Amino acid sequence: MVQFSDIEDAARRIAPYAHQTPVLASSQLNAKFDAQFFVKAESFQRSGSFKFRGAMNAMLQLTEDQRRNGVLTYSSGNHAQALALAGKLLGSPVVVVMPNDAPAVKRAATEGYGGEVILYDRDETTREALGSRLAEERGLTLVPPYDHPHIIAGAGTAVRELILESGELDMLLVCLGGGGLLSGSAVSAKTLLPACQVIGVEPEAGDDIARSFRSGKIETVKDPITIADGARTPSASALTFAHIQAHVDDVVTVADSTLVECTKFYAERMKVLVEPTGCLSLAAAWEGKVDVRGKRVGVVVSGGNVDLSRLASLWTGGSGLD
Amino acid sequence: MVQFSDIEDAARRIAPYAHQTPVLASSQLNAKFDAQFFVKAESFQRSGSFKFRGAMNAMLQLTEDQRRNGVLTYSSGNHAQALALAGKLLGSPVVVVMPNDAPAVKRAATEGYGGEVILYDRDETTREALGSRLAEERGLTLVPPYDHPHIIAGAGTAVRELILESGELDMLLVCLGGGGLLSGSAVSAKTLLPACQVIGVEPEAGDDIARSFRSGKIETVKDPITIADGARTPSASALTFAHIQAHVDDVVTVADSTLVECTKFYAERMKVLVEPTGCLSLAAAWEGKVDVRGKRVGVVVSGGNVDLSRLASLWTGGSGLD
Repeated sequence: MVQFSDIEDAARRIAPYAHQTPVLASSQLNAKFDAQFFVKAESFQRSGSFKFRGAMNAMLQLTEDQRRNGVLTYSSGNHAQALALAGKLLGSPVVVVMPNDAPAVKRAATEGYGGEVILYDRDETTREALGSRLAEERGLTLVPPYDHPHIIAGAGTAVRELILESGELDMLLVCLGGGGLLSGSAVSAKTLLPACQVIGVEPEAGDDIARSFRSGKIETVKDPITIADGARTPSASALTFAHIQAHVDDVVTVADSTLVECTKFYAERMKVLVEPTGCLSLAAAWEGKVDVRGKRVGVVVSGGNVDLSRLASLWTGGSGLD
Repeated sequence: MVQFSDIEDAARRIAPYAHQTPVLASSQLNAKFDAQFFVKAESFQRSGSFKFRGAMNAMLQLTEDQRRNGVLTYSSGNHAQALALAGKLLGSPVVVVMPNDAPAVKRAATEGYGGEVILYDRDETTREALGSRLAEERGLTLVPPYDHPHIIAGAGTAVRELILESGELDMLLVCLGGGGLLSGSAVSAKTLLPACQVIGVEPEAGDDIARSFRSGKIETVKDPITIADGARTPSASALTFAHIQAHVDDVVTVADSTLVECTKFYAERMKVLVEPTGCLSLAAAWEGKVDVRGKRVGVVVSGGNVDLSRLASLWTGGSGLD
């Protein structure tokens, strides 16, 4: 299990590379819900999401040899971009395995940070098989998107920063996909503010961890249809689920339509661009799934990477689904 | 003429009410133009634009009686929203005169801040005639959008803040409509950094001040067709033109298509929402109208108030014109 000392170590380790992201306030938001919100905007993190924190923390703990040989990951989303940037900054080759039907925009984003994208045909091989072959041939080290203590510790540095700036919080709302961000956030929150309620927020269609939280065992979901593309993960890992069971007070779900409303609120009123997945946290308050009235509420925005034409479609009534 | 001491006084006066807005950096932007940019994001100012600075500075210099009776303005844009918010904060009635064909979204924004909107029929009266009648009947004081030393001094506080944070700048790019922001910005810049080049940036279609700058007399433009709706003003005032002649090094123009590209860059890469008018400053560098290579460049973003459906249209190839 990740300890708060691991998160403090990660914070020191990544400090020369990561941004200290702003904590945003909005008097309109506060008035709307009769609460005081502290919005930790990881959309302003390098590579556009909190994922950079974990990727960098993991990369910095590789051996010289491992870093020189390079790293490999599977994610086609924010983790791929974050790892590509971390590798670029440290002079380490980064290989990202993606299916050949991955959106061109995701491939371009990873390549834009200098990552090498290797496509595979879903009918001919699996990412695991291709990954294993590449790892062996090239001596690459796998850096998974969330299932690793270094990734979780890195992710936890965002809420540590938030609380050092906001002070006392009654509640913390966290976006939830595979559970890396929630795990690290919960360790930071429960250490610094033991009385703070920590809530994970999933999309309705991808409610695997909400169900797992209730049943006490890891439940899965297959290819959920949601605009929260960063939360389409099939399940928590044993590691993230252990952290969630130990430190999290509740897991709630929200509708995609609420995510759209929140992207609009962030843009129109707060002038910041947040990706649909990054709206999960605020959406829990927006939908009344948590009682924020009179409380000091931390809201973790996971990222801001979204194709503008997709966002434009969402804002004008489109489905925003691939 | 407004002096820097007026701007310092304004800064002290509005400090309890206005936000100190962030100065944004982007390594991608710096790399793209081989320059170091300091983006003063007045989109994060209260009411969503720099206009709050001037409106508040003007309101705070009214007599008790004037404030109690209330104020009047004509603008249907950012100045109206800024004045409505300033009035709300100070408990002063705010009346905004708009033509009855003004976009509903602008009317709603002003009313959202508690302003009273009075519509008039363009065929039956002028805003000046209606304004005079209302001012007399209700004892309202006119607070114009840019043609007033208190407005200019308030506007100048943004660049004062920018330079106190950025330090040395070789060039300052400023969005230009009626010239209030450029006038105040130029006074701050030339006082604090006499060698800094100060450049105003207009849309091509609304090039009245660019032409005025060359001819040496106030030129006008009638209802220019541009997506930079905050820069559709017909001309500089005698007051703003005097400041521009005294302190500004050049006035350049940019194409609307460049403004669209800049709204996209700000959103996609920097995760901030900027209205088309607010993109004028960056657009001058983007189009190569100024030589930024190797320089430290201040960029003033005037505001972030834009209807999302309009922005969505611009991002997907629409004209964005009313």
